[in-house]
Amino acid sequence: MGSLAIRGAQPADASAIAEIIIPTFREGSTYTIDPDISEADALAYWLSPDKETFVAEDDGAIVGTYYMRTNQAGGGRHVCNCGYMTRACVTGRGIARAMCLHSLSHARSRGYRAMQFNFVVSTNDRAVRLWQSLGFEIVGRLPGAFQHPTQGIVDALVLYQTL
Amino acid sequence: MGSLAIRGAQPADASAIAEIIIPTFREGSTYTIDPDISEADALAYWLSPDKETFVAEDDGAIVGTYYMRTNQAGGGRHVCNCGYMTRACVTGRGIARAMCLHSLSHARSRGYRAMQFNFVVSTNDRAVRLWQSLGFEIVGRLPGAFQHPTQGIVDALVLYQTL
Repeated sequence: MGSLAIRGAQPADASAIAEIIIPTFREGSTYTIDPDISEADALAYWLSPDKETFVAEDDGAIVGTYYMRTNQAGGGRHVCNCGYMTRACVTGRGIARAMCLHSLSHARSRGYRAMQFNFVVSTNDRAVRLWQSLGFEIVGRLPGAFQHPTQGIVDALVLYQTL
Repeated sequence: MGSLAIRGAQPADASAIAEIIIPTFREGSTYTIDPDISEADALAYWLSPDKETFVAEDDGAIVGTYYMRTNQAGGGRHVCNCGYMTRACVTGRGIARAMCLHSLSHARSRGYRAMQFNFVVSTNDRAVRLWQSLGFEIVGRLPGAFQHPTQGIVDALVLYQTL
C-alpha cells in the first residue's frame, strides 16, 4: 500500500473495473443494482457519461474504483454523489478511505458544496463507520428499504457531508 | 371537482402535461430539474419508459399529473417513488391529495411495499403537510441541499411511507 495512486479511469481499465464491480453487484448486499446485470450494462453504469470515474492503483494493479456525479439537477446540482468499490481480496487496507479522501478533495475542486450518499445499506457497518470517520453524518434512515440477500429486509441510510 | 378522474396518460395528453410541468420546472422551486430544460426533454423525463404516468381530469380538462417508478433497482426495488404536479390555476382544490391517494392504492396493487419521496424542498410547506397528512414521515433532512430561486440555500427532506 506504499504506492497507492488514484487517477481517472481510462478505457483500458474496463476489464479491471469489471473484475471489481461485477462480484459486488452479483452478491447484491451493498448496491441497489440488479444482481443479474450484464457485464456490459454494469460497465455502462459505472462509466456512464454523467459520472467521473477513478481507479486506485497499488504498484500498477487496480485495487479500487469510484465514481462521482452530480446528485440532482437544477437547484440540487451543488451536491455530488459517489460510489466506491474495493477489490474483494484487498479490503481492510485503507483503499476505500483513500478513495473517499480523494473524492472529497476532488469534489471541492469541482465546486460542489456537499456530498450525499443516497443509499447505504445499514448492515454495511464497516462502510458506515468509515464514512462517519471521514465526516459524514447519518441524515436519514429509510425503514426496510433494502432486501438483503441473506439478512432479509433491512434499513438503508442517507449520509451527507457539507464541504 | 365533482368528477375528478385519474387514468393512465396517453400520447394525446402530452401537450396538456407540458402545460403543467413546464411552468413548474421553469420556476425551479420544487423539482431538481434544470429550469431551462426543453419541452421535449421535460416530456421525455415525465413520460420516460421507467415510469407509469397518470393524469387527473376534471370535467374533461387535465388538471394534474403524476408518475410512479421503482426508486432503486436490485434489493431496493420494492420501494416506489412518485412525483406529482397540479395545474397552477387549480391548486388548493384537493387534486394533489387525490393523486397521492390514487398512487398509494396503485403502488399496493403493483406490490410495492413502501413509497419514498427522495427530495422534497423544505420550503414547500403545503406539500410537506399534505404528504404527512397522507401517512408519510420525514425520515431524512438534507442540509442545504437545494438552491431555491428566491430563498437561497434551503434544506430538502426525505419522506417515506411503508405500505
